[in-house]
Amino acid sequence: MTVSTSASQPVTTQFLSDRYEQVRQLSEQICQPLATEDYVVQSMPEVGPPKWHLGHTSWYFENFLLVPHLPGYDVFHPKFAYLFNPHYDSVGEHILAFQRGLMSRPTVDEVYGYRAYIDEAVRSLIIEQGDDPNLRDLILLLINHEQQHQEMLLADIKHIFAINPLRPIYKSIDKSTATIPSPENSTTSTRTGKWLEYPGGKYTIGYGGEKFAFDNEKPSHCVHLQDYSLACAPVTNGEYLAFIEAGGYHQPEHWLLEGWMLIRAEQWQAPLYWEKIDGRWWVTTLSGLRPVDENEPVCHVSFFEADAYARWALKRLPTEAEWEIAGAPLAVEGNFLESGRLHPTPASGTTELTQLFGDVWEWTQSAHLPYPGFKTYPGAIGEYSRKFMCNSKVLRGGSCATPMDHMRSTYRYYFPPNARWLFSGFRLAD
Amino acid sequence: MTVSTSASQPVTTQFLSDRYEQVRQLSEQICQPLATEDYVVQSMPEVGPPKWHLGHTSWYFENFLLVPHLPGYDVFHPKFAYLFNPHYDSVGEHILAFQRGLMSRPTVDEVYGYRAYIDEAVRSLIIEQGDDPNLRDLILLLINHEQQHQEMLLADIKHIFAINPLRPIYKSIDKSTATIPSPENSTTSTRTGKWLEYPGGKYTIGYGGEKFAFDNEKPSHCVHLQDYSLACAPVTNGEYLAFIEAGGYHQPEHWLLEGWMLIRAEQWQAPLYWEKIDGRWWVTTLSGLRPVDENEPVCHVSFFEADAYARWALKRLPTEAEWEIAGAPLAVEGNFLESGRLHPTPASGTTELTQLFGDVWEWTQSAHLPYPGFKTYPGAIGEYSRKFMCNSKVLRGGSCATPMDHMRSTYRYYFPPNARWLFSGFRLAD
Amino acid sequence: MTVSTSASQPVTTQFLSDRYEQVRQLSEQICQPLATEDYVVQSMPEVGPPKWHLGHTSWYFENFLLVPHLPGYDVFHPKFAYLFNPHYDSVGEHILAFQRGLMSRPTVDEVYGYRAYIDEAVRSLIIEQGDDPNLRDLILLLINHEQQHQEMLLADIKHIFAINPLRPIYKSIDKSTATIPSPENSTTSTRTGKWLEYPGGKYTIGYGGEKFAFDNEKPSHCVHLQDYSLACAPVTNGEYLAFIEAGGYHQPEHWLLEGWMLIRAEQWQAPLYWEKIDGRWWVTTLSGLRPVDENEPVCHVSFFEADAYARWALKRLPTEAEWEIAGAPLAVEGNFLESGRLHPTPASGTTELTQLFGDVWEWTQSAHLPYPGFKTYPGAIGEYSRKFMCNSKVLRGGSCATPMDHMRSTYRYYFPPNARWLFSGFRLAD
Amino acid sequence: MTVSTSASQPVTTQFLSDRYEQVRQLSEQICQPLATEDYVVQSMPEVGPPKWHLGHTSWYFENFLLVPHLPGYDVFHPKFAYLFNPHYDSVGEHILAFQRGLMSRPTVDEVYGYRAYIDEAVRSLIIEQGDDPNLRDLILLLINHEQQHQEMLLADIKHIFAINPLRPIYKSIDKSTATIPSPENSTTSTRTGKWLEYPGGKYTIGYGGEKFAFDNEKPSHCVHLQDYSLACAPVTNGEYLAFIEAGGYHQPEHWLLEGWMLIRAEQWQAPLYWEKIDGRWWVTTLSGLRPVDENEPVCHVSFFEADAYARWALKRLPTEAEWEIAGAPLAVEGNFLESGRLHPTPASGTTELTQLFGDVWEWTQSAHLPYPGFKTYPGAIGEYSRKFMCNSKVLRGGSCATPMDHMRSTYRYYFPPNARWLFSGFRLAD
Repeated sequence: MTVSTSASQPVTTQFLSDRYEQVRQLSEQICQPLATEDYVVQSMPEVGPPKWHLGHTSWYFENFLLVPHLPGYDVFHPKFAYLFNPHYDSVGEHILAFQRGLMSRPTVDEVYGYRAYIDEAVRSLIIEQGDDPNLRDLILLLINHEQQHQEMLLADIKHIFAINPLRPIYKSIDKSTATIPSPENSTTSTRTGKWLEYPGGKYTIGYGGEKFAFDNEKPSHCVHLQDYSLACAPVTNGEYLAFIEAGGYHQPEHWLLEGWMLIRAEQWQAPLYWEKIDGRWWVTTLSGLRPVDENEPVCHVSFFEADAYARWALKRLPTEAEWEIAGAPLAVEGNFLESGRLHPTPASGTTELTQLFGDVWEWTQSAHLPYPGFKTYPGAIGEYSRKFMCNSKVLRGGSCATPMDHMRSTYRYYFPPNARWLFSGFRLAD
Repeated sequence: MTVSTSASQPVTTQFLSDRYEQVRQLSEQICQPLATEDYVVQSMPEVGPPKWHLGHTSWYFENFLLVPHLPGYDVFHPKFAYLFNPHYDSVGEHILAFQRGLMSRPTVDEVYGYRAYIDEAVRSLIIEQGDDPNLRDLILLLINHEQQHQEMLLADIKHIFAINPLRPIYKSIDKSTATIPSPENSTTSTRTGKWLEYPGGKYTIGYGGEKFAFDNEKPSHCVHLQDYSLACAPVTNGEYLAFIEAGGYHQPEHWLLEGWMLIRAEQWQAPLYWEKIDGRWWVTTLSGLRPVDENEPVCHVSFFEADAYARWALKRLPTEAEWEIAGAPLAVEGNFLESGRLHPTPASGTTELTQLFGDVWEWTQSAHLPYPGFKTYPGAIGEYSRKFMCNSKVLRGGSCATPMDHMRSTYRYYFPPNARWLFSGFRLAD
Repeated sequence: MTVSTSASQPVTTQFLSDRYEQVRQLSEQICQPLATEDYVVQSMPEVGPPKWHLGHTSWYFENFLLVPHLPGYDVFHPKFAYLFNPHYDSVGEHILAFQRGLMSRPTVDEVYGYRAYIDEAVRSLIIEQGDDPNLRDLILLLINHEQQHQEMLLADIKHIFAINPLRPIYKSIDKSTATIPSPENSTTSTRTGKWLEYPGGKYTIGYGGEKFAFDNEKPSHCVHLQDYSLACAPVTNGEYLAFIEAGGYHQPEHWLLEGWMLIRAEQWQAPLYWEKIDGRWWVTTLSGLRPVDENEPVCHVSFFEADAYARWALKRLPTEAEWEIAGAPLAVEGNFLESGRLHPTPASGTTELTQLFGDVWEWTQSAHLPYPGFKTYPGAIGEYSRKFMCNSKVLRGGSCATPMDHMRSTYRYYFPPNARWLFSGFRLAD
Repeated sequence: MTVSTSASQPVTTQFLSDRYEQVRQLSEQICQPLATEDYVVQSMPEVGPPKWHLGHTSWYFENFLLVPHLPGYDVFHPKFAYLFNPHYDSVGEHILAFQRGLMSRPTVDEVYGYRAYIDEAVRSLIIEQGDDPNLRDLILLLINHEQQHQEMLLADIKHIFAINPLRPIYKSIDKSTATIPSPENSTTSTRTGKWLEYPGGKYTIGYGGEKFAFDNEKPSHCVHLQDYSLACAPVTNGEYLAFIEAGGYHQPEHWLLEGWMLIRAEQWQAPLYWEKIDGRWWVTTLSGLRPVDENEPVCHVSFFEADAYARWALKRLPTEAEWEIAGAPLAVEGNFLESGRLHPTPASGTTELTQLFGDVWEWTQSAHLPYPGFKTYPGAIGEYSRKFMCNSKVLRGGSCATPMDHMRSTYRYYFPPNARWLFSGFRLAD
């Protein structure tokens, strides 16, 4: 799984074409380890069956690019819009999100056929019209959209595998890149205790450059911050275990009311994928069950859990502006999808700001709301981000399942506060 | 799809062995037209994914026959009991019925491997112990259990295909066996108006013979009936259409309260699989969409609909005893699974009792309750019928999806009154 | 609370008038201990607020008697039909059952005003037309309908009081009629072990007389029974405790599947209103909390619990025909509403058939289905019983909350198998 | 209903005592028009029965003030904490919010008795310890808490009355204060078209004074705003009608996804309490049904509706900071609870910023989140605001049901975006 990170190259037709091919191939590469059956199921309402992701991203190119812009284009199948339109009611009727796993057809082969058909058409369009700046921007958006689904594919596959009593393994551990803790000699956790201070004042956040960025990252604008500090590293499993062992999941005083009702109703006792076996915590990963490594960033926690931990620790979660100001000067590098680990790495113990990019998405306390002066894309695709600007929290920095060249310091990822099947962790602020 | 109908042969080891092979093969034959993806989905909570049926029927042989009776037998996989045990809590933990469609694994190939493994073991057991009368009865029960799932497979596949917007076809029409009505020249429906009269008095119902019958058919016992009449044939689509067109689905006075609340909540307007296109009714069959044939027995109606129709027609549904007394003298033959039609046939217009067996299951007004003197099988399998002796109605006679040699005049099929994805119709009584 | 039991008197206008007055007064007498607030709440969806019962029974007289038969009658309020029509969609729009507790108006005083208005009009009608046999039958039906609601009033008030943390008391213990077990010296339970045998054969059941009976009790007709035995007395608390202590609520093998799923989901551990305090079982009664008396018939059990107990005890529940044949020769007397106890009495230890009438309703295994030849009342009131002939079980004999002159050996009471807030117990058969 | 507005007076013991008496009396005055039955029901899960509000606010004084601070205080009833604790799990067990309407007891009289008992004790405490600044702040918090429930009482009573088919009237129109539009000659609506411009820059928001303010209004802190404009007046019924008539409730492109799914599921077509009768819109008010007045601010809309309207109008909702900067210089006066109208007043057509305070709460686009440096109250009462800092939107300015002396320009009211039974409207920004 290698993808050249070309974020800084100019957007020529060749660049567009290369990037299109790379991204489209990567989606299929991600699905390569799956059995046909794994493509079909929807293990919970929020999960999309992998074949749905493959079809849906293709429909995006078909509906928003090919149909309006490629003269003489014939849609692949008249019913695919009904199947692969996620929620654009203004585009037309569609199945409901929770029904995706009820569809045995199209088959996986037919979906791959659909992809090939779309690819052929997009290639022609890029050759013929790739220098039209408006189309170029649209194509970049659609490519970035598919990258978002690459991460969702991995999160969804993980869930589909994890709930299966046969515990299938997506990818065997690559011994050269991964260290697996043995239950016997796991190191003692050390608190991420180092803090970095940032002075308050007037700052600019949001994307102001010329390259691709999503609509919700724009426009760049001023904000006023108070003095603040950030922890050097995300909260680790070891630190989070201390919260569990102190009874955090049974003490209402740390929780938002909605979170508390949720964890009682669902009987949450630990992050998703953790289970206690013979007195020790194990975690299901894409490479199977392993002992919990106390030095790794905690992953698969909801905003509610992140927020409760922070309150218990007498700290708080950062705002997205605080996070962005700290992250802006840093290089966007780290443990991303390209590493092939697909799991967070242990903290290095540095006193610098570390693991800000990659490893785990970091919950912020900020709601996903429009920036001042926010403009949507024209037409139906304008619903892209804005339809979700409600009851969601912003996460920052990308994870071990995010393509690296998809990331920016201004990137705003958003999920409802109860979601935790994404690769989500958090960092404390003060 | 041919199965020799051998209900009248003596149960020798050879017979047992032949029947085992035939039945096990038929289950796989039924699934032969499926794509791998079709094996996986659970299109509504009541439906089982086809691979679940294939695995579950095998687990039945494993759990109730091989484990207790084949010395040295090793279970195929320790987790399969968890996956394929439907509801026997006394046997152990298991997934819940509505979770069956969330399981991508085992794969279809693995399930077929499981079947082969079980077949191998059952063959040995039959050779070695096939003359033990207790085991013989047990094996017959397990074979008959698998036959029940053959019908469920067809009903479930039909549902999985019918809800799919791509409208896959399970089996092309066999022109030699089927007549498809054309929308242009469908014949006018004729009411099933002929009635046969039966005198009241003391009768014996229930199974009293020496062959296989389910526990809920026994013991044979006396009942007292009043004089009654039965319609010669099941209610047809044409007759049912008259009820629809008279506003039957909008008139509360015909309905049981629970049925009325159901049809309002679910907005039922016609039998399952019917849809009105350009002013004409069409129906989805296992061979795709066809115009509704007014002469065919109405199929895929719930007990609530059958009962409402009967009240509207100023008649009633028969009791199961009335049905059985009428059916006992008749040969068990008709349009069963073996015909390959997988769809009811038009009424012949006879003045004899017709289509009693095959075509459509016939709802009776009787609740599924124990006969006087009812005994369950010993052990966990004793839950076979009795666990469902509540809130269910008895249907009689088998359908176009029932294996013919599985049928008897004493056979009691049972479903909740709201079910209609089975091949269910009804006949009037007076 | 005294009501003359006049079931054997001829139905003269005077008789009708007396009975009307008595029954109407008794409903109000039942509500006399209530605070205004107690009239309003609906403590669970199946419960009706007491003011709803008072209004609904009056609307019954208004809608089915006064409007069609009293010339010049003006309805009390045009919206009361909307509020007090329970489920007669053919009569008109109405609030849904679960919304009854959302209605603060009409006030209790207004409902009593409504009752007085109705009473005035019914009195005129009886004087003027009380000798019209059709009206006489209708009035008797409406009176009996109100009696049914008297029992529901008591069951619903009990529930409203029992779920309230302040534990209000409906009626203090009458020391002259009740013996309250003390926790210290409760007597050891003795099994209801005596059995009476009944020979099989042809019997007649159902109501065939000239007096009032509900439609579902008719017509009288022949049935064939096998030999059977009945326990002399209903199962007692002491016997039922043995089932609880043997782990009956945790052993799936005794239960119908639907019952087992229910008790797990709802975590039932004992009859309704029982609670364990400091290792001893107590029960909430209309006179407050008391220690469970092991000699009383067990009360407030669902059909599922009765059926599971019977299976555990290697017995079964009787059919309604078996019960009726045994009960027909006996006088209808016992611990009914008129005793004022409002609670079952301890078993007397007799070797005769005892407590068949009164004390607790007895679940039978019979489904509530139409008798052969069943006819409904004409018009909308024809929905009276038949709308409920589905997924319900028949209970027999009346309870300590049933008016005695409302009872007959042919009386068929019916509830869904999960209901247990009525005064329901059971007797074993074999 | 008159309350002296004393926000500017110093907090002496006398002041505290006066304010306590006024506020406590006002709660009871608000309930004065209710029948006993109206105190009991919970017309939807979000509504509290009036007697619950009266009891709950008293329990607040008991639990947070009297128990910890009045030596020798005896709680009124040991179970009242269970009944009147809304969600403080750290304080103890309590009924769930949706169960409040299931409680017939305590009676209304008992609740008033509870209030009198609490009042007696609080009076002693104020006399003895009213000069302790910590207690003074706590008492002010509890008084303000009760004021919040005064508004909830009115919103809840309105809902309880509005869903009742008998359409009870809370308060007859006061002809001296209200103008009721006649259906015949309603004036044509004029758009609120005047806009006021505000320059961007650094501003201070939040409460920084010495008087009472809730924890979520503090601390005062800097923010940076861009240039913005605000409409002079809230959106009127007439303007909102144009949105309805343009098909706004049927066009997905205006809506947040969650809002769109909600209005389709619930079939919303207009603000709450609106209904179309013979082609004209009417609205249920606390004074009964009236024609919709096109010049009044639209009321009883959810955030989703406000947000959709704004998008349709090519504008947006203001942020809470934008609102506060505009409102800070203005006097807090307008159509508040004290006017007795209990309904918004028509717009005056001014070109000044108008109706910012009173009339209707104004939805902002801001999420209810902690201000930088936010501190909770110590102990369990610290959950006051912070438990709700999730999935809620801020509203500003108070309404015709808000006590005027409860309001400030920094006041942050918050509700989930689907709520609309509060007196909520909105103003556009650009």
